[in-house]
Amino acid sequence: MITSALQTARKAYQPKLPPVLRQGPGAVKLQLGAPTESIADSQKVRALFPLTYGQPVAEFVAGATASGGPLTVGVVLSGGQAPGGHNVIAGLFDALKAIHPDSRVLGFLGGPSGLVEGKFIEITASLLSGFRNTGGFDLIGSGRTKLEKAEQFQKARAVLEKNGAGAVVIIGGDDSNTNGAVLAEWFKAQGSMLVVVGAPKTIDGDLKTPQIPTSFGFDTAAKTYAELIGNIERDARSAKKYWHFIKIMGRSASHLALEAALQTQPNLVLVSEEIAQQGTTLAQLTVQIAQLVDARARAGKNFGVAVIPEGLVEFLPDVKKLIATLNDLLAHEGPAFEAAPDQAAKEALLRRHLAAEVAATFFALPAAIRGQLLLDRDPHGNVQVSRIETEKLIAEVVGAELVRMGSKAKYSALTHFFGYEGRCAAPSNFDADYTYTLGYVAALLVQGGRTGYIASVSHLTKGNDHWVPGGIPLTQLFNIERRHGEDKPVIRKALVELDGAPFRQLAAHREAWAKGEEYVYPGPIQYWGPAEVCDATTKTLELEQG
Amino acid sequence: MITSALQTARKAYQPKLPPVLRQGPGAVKLQLGAPTESIADSQKVRALFPLTYGQPVAEFVAGATASGGPLTVGVVLSGGQAPGGHNVIAGLFDALKAIHPDSRVLGFLGGPSGLVEGKFIEITASLLSGFRNTGGFDLIGSGRTKLEKAEQFQKARAVLEKNGAGAVVIIGGDDSNTNGAVLAEWFKAQGSMLVVVGAPKTIDGDLKTPQIPTSFGFDTAAKTYAELIGNIERDARSAKKYWHFIKIMGRSASHLALEAALQTQPNLVLVSEEIAQQGTTLAQLTVQIAQLVDARARAGKNFGVAVIPEGLVEFLPDVKKLIATLNDLLAHEGPAFEAAPDQAAKEALLRRHLAAEVAATFFALPAAIRGQLLLDRDPHGNVQVSRIETEKLIAEVVGAELVRMGSKAKYSALTHFFGYEGRCAAPSNFDADYTYTLGYVAALLVQGGRTGYIASVSHLTKGNDHWVPGGIPLTQLFNIERRHGEDKPVIRKALVELDGAPFRQLAAHREAWAKGEEYVYPGPIQYWGPAEVCDATTKTLELEQG
Repeated sequence: MITSALQTARKAYQPKLPPVLRQGPGAVKLQLGAPTESIADSQKVRALFPLTYGQPVAEFVAGATASGGPLTVGVVLSGGQAPGGHNVIAGLFDALKAIHPDSRVLGFLGGPSGLVEGKFIEITASLLSGFRNTGGFDLIGSGRTKLEKAEQFQKARAVLEKNGAGAVVIIGGDDSNTNGAVLAEWFKAQGSMLVVVGAPKTIDGDLKTPQIPTSFGFDTAAKTYAELIGNIERDARSAKKYWHFIKIMGRSASHLALEAALQTQPNLVLVSEEIAQQGTTLAQLTVQIAQLVDARARAGKNFGVAVIPEGLVEFLPDVKKLIATLNDLLAHEGPAFEAAPDQAAKEALLRRHLAAEVAATFFALPAAIRGQLLLDRDPHGNVQVSRIETEKLIAEVVGAELVRMGSKAKYSALTHFFGYEGRCAAPSNFDADYTYTLGYVAALLVQGGRTGYIASVSHLTKGNDHWVPGGIPLTQLFNIERRHGEDKPVIRKALVELDGAPFRQLAAHREAWAKGEEYVYPGPIQYWGPAEVCDATTKTLELEQG
Repeated sequence: MITSALQTARKAYQPKLPPVLRQGPGAVKLQLGAPTESIADSQKVRALFPLTYGQPVAEFVAGATASGGPLTVGVVLSGGQAPGGHNVIAGLFDALKAIHPDSRVLGFLGGPSGLVEGKFIEITASLLSGFRNTGGFDLIGSGRTKLEKAEQFQKARAVLEKNGAGAVVIIGGDDSNTNGAVLAEWFKAQGSMLVVVGAPKTIDGDLKTPQIPTSFGFDTAAKTYAELIGNIERDARSAKKYWHFIKIMGRSASHLALEAALQTQPNLVLVSEEIAQQGTTLAQLTVQIAQLVDARARAGKNFGVAVIPEGLVEFLPDVKKLIATLNDLLAHEGPAFEAAPDQAAKEALLRRHLAAEVAATFFALPAAIRGQLLLDRDPHGNVQVSRIETEKLIAEVVGAELVRMGSKAKYSALTHFFGYEGRCAAPSNFDADYTYTLGYVAALLVQGGRTGYIASVSHLTKGNDHWVPGGIPLTQLFNIERRHGEDKPVIRKALVELDGAPFRQLAAHREAWAKGEEYVYPGPIQYWGPAEVCDATTKTLELEQG
């Protein structure tokens, strides 16, 4: 296999551990704090997790730990790719081998289903060497199977026990770690000593609590998107004739779009959470953007850059209602819809069934978007929201609005979607170090028998020498939410907070960014060179951690 | 203005000149070789350029040049953005100031029209300092006005003379340098001593001759696209569920797509020049790609990455004929078309007017693409080929073909277009050095009075210490081509040569790339770090120069 020059050079990079871990597992001990409470609904959460609720926060401090025997630990990559996943496995491997050379890591294949079905490979030093500091999850693959049912838990237990594994590390987002906590509780309830430890993964940045300042992958993905936005800003400012609408991945939270915008200062960035809070409709948003385009045109600037979060449409109340109505309607009128031969016929059916207000929302959409709403449906017959080209939708409706308002703007729009470009980028120095540390910490939590914990590192903004590794009991992150008509204990998804420092930073500057070209060009991620270039964290982390 | 950490650090980068230029303009002299001939049609070209034809190749060698007086030189950025444009101006500025501190550089604004209209700013050291080693053309802007008419030449002459400028440096592609040669001839014919010197710019890589190994910007743009393709390959291999169709910028030549593919080894790369040579129709191409998708699916691989050059559709003989027919038809039936209220009505009109074969091509296209052909027309009423989403076209027709052939492939396609992301990227070390050297050389050519020359650097693959700077008489690059029914002297556009080393490299390996995942992940451009990472040239240059 040919590897690129960069990949070959990065193979030799030794990720930096926080000081307390640098002398190896024998020189660090687990220190437990006071018992914890869940962030909300503590009685209900306690009732659901009688055996693992309220465990103390764990911190690693200098001190001697008796050398133990070999440990065998399974590892699972769950959900979407995020830069640094391989380094979590590398950190886990190195720590376990340092604890005892006969320790083993079993990599379950294709995500949680590999654990349930007993499909795995043993991670060896030589196998791992080609994957250190690389992006992607291709070492063992990932998957979206949800570990939720007792039947799955039973199988997972049998698989782990049969292979002599005493623990499983689940690298995943809020859902996967929610399920990890349930699995930990279930193992205990069954009298099993199996340990479940999590690691906070998601480029979306929505697995975030006071104890877990950021999820891994967010740093690299945001910087990759910011590189591209910056390049496009430079092009916009040079060519002076295009409006660029750039959609940025992030299923519902706008963290990635906001972070990329804080790094690049475009003329406009939409934040779904603000739009939802203000109840802005698509029509209102369209007018706002058209007015911005018009105002710039009046100043002789027929160009600009707008950043749009992927989840936007579901936060616009009118579009949200339209989608819900369509899902209901398609459920009831499915056969008639299937029978309609083309988009025009389907739309004729809609005219008969939709209430006037909803119909108005629908028919105000460009034909291509209407097609995406009607034709691209998932296996359950629902509208595939992720297939909606929001960036084109916005570009088109703004164009129509400019005509309607009689604007003299020369409006030529180009659209972009950045997502897959960042999910598997090679991890930045920050993510490479952070993920390696998380994996190392996960091994120590396993050694300490801390089931139902998630590996954590705090004080992340102050440079690696100040990082503090530890473990957070998962139940501390829980609250109760209604899901499909049921109360469920879940890790609360962290959306952008409108009174948080990153959003306030945007709010304080966006008027100036809209009018001028205060573009910033971050350029590509650098691995060598001045520390302020290579080792900076995200603006979000910097602002949130003060 | 806030600048990014990378931009601030790069500001301090001093681009490397070839050894012979390092002691400054006083220590280098211009050495002239034998007279030259144009690459073809020499009699006709000579007749058209009686005063500038056949000049000798110029090379710069160590030696003393008497220090001259101050020079005032205009500079123009012409056409599309390319990484390094600002460094050409920086090199020009530094060399002129080294020749004499009172030398001046006038930056004409907004491209060639700035020269004709006398709109310019004086480039100063402090103004320039913020633009060294940056991407974009925003220092003075660019434009696409063609300098072709005597009236424009007259005005340009007046502007230059009025402002005391003895020369103009035109930074542009094949068209702009063609016009530069005509301008140089015209000045001479008018008895003017004004000097015209060119610099080879275009990310497309199609301004390339034995004397000019590459145009600037190609290196950076190709590496930026390769970064993104590599990231997507890693995602494809990790997620294992998508086929990615990635369109890469490059108006007609496929150099960028080919280079990016040589760097990343995707499962498929289309080369327009090969498709044209083989006369492959869209239907045939569709079957070929569907068979590849099907073959991978049979091997359990429902994923892949395909790279498509932007110019593809114009090289498919059936689509090319369709577009030409539509342009003719729209010219004749314009009013009837305008009157047709929607796409269906326009298509009904087409059914009546198109010959059966052309109609078959048209109606085999997906509805959205038909819409782009009919609705997105340029001011002359022609189909806007650049608006055709070729990547979606291919993704859709392949999907339909898989159904037709009864394939069991699970086919889920995602599409991308990379272009604007690379045009204004900050120049790689190679492009930063190359462009600075070109600008420096342009100043020396001006000093030597070499009008009708283009700055050149040869031996580019062997590291900066081996670079040989010089000047090529533009007429040497000329041949005669039919343009709009007339014989015109033009610089021959360099397309991908099917017997050239880069294409042969692809041909030798693509079967293996198609079947396996021989993906290479180049990662982002690096400015510091190991030389093999930071200073490598393109594969194209490496293979072509041996």
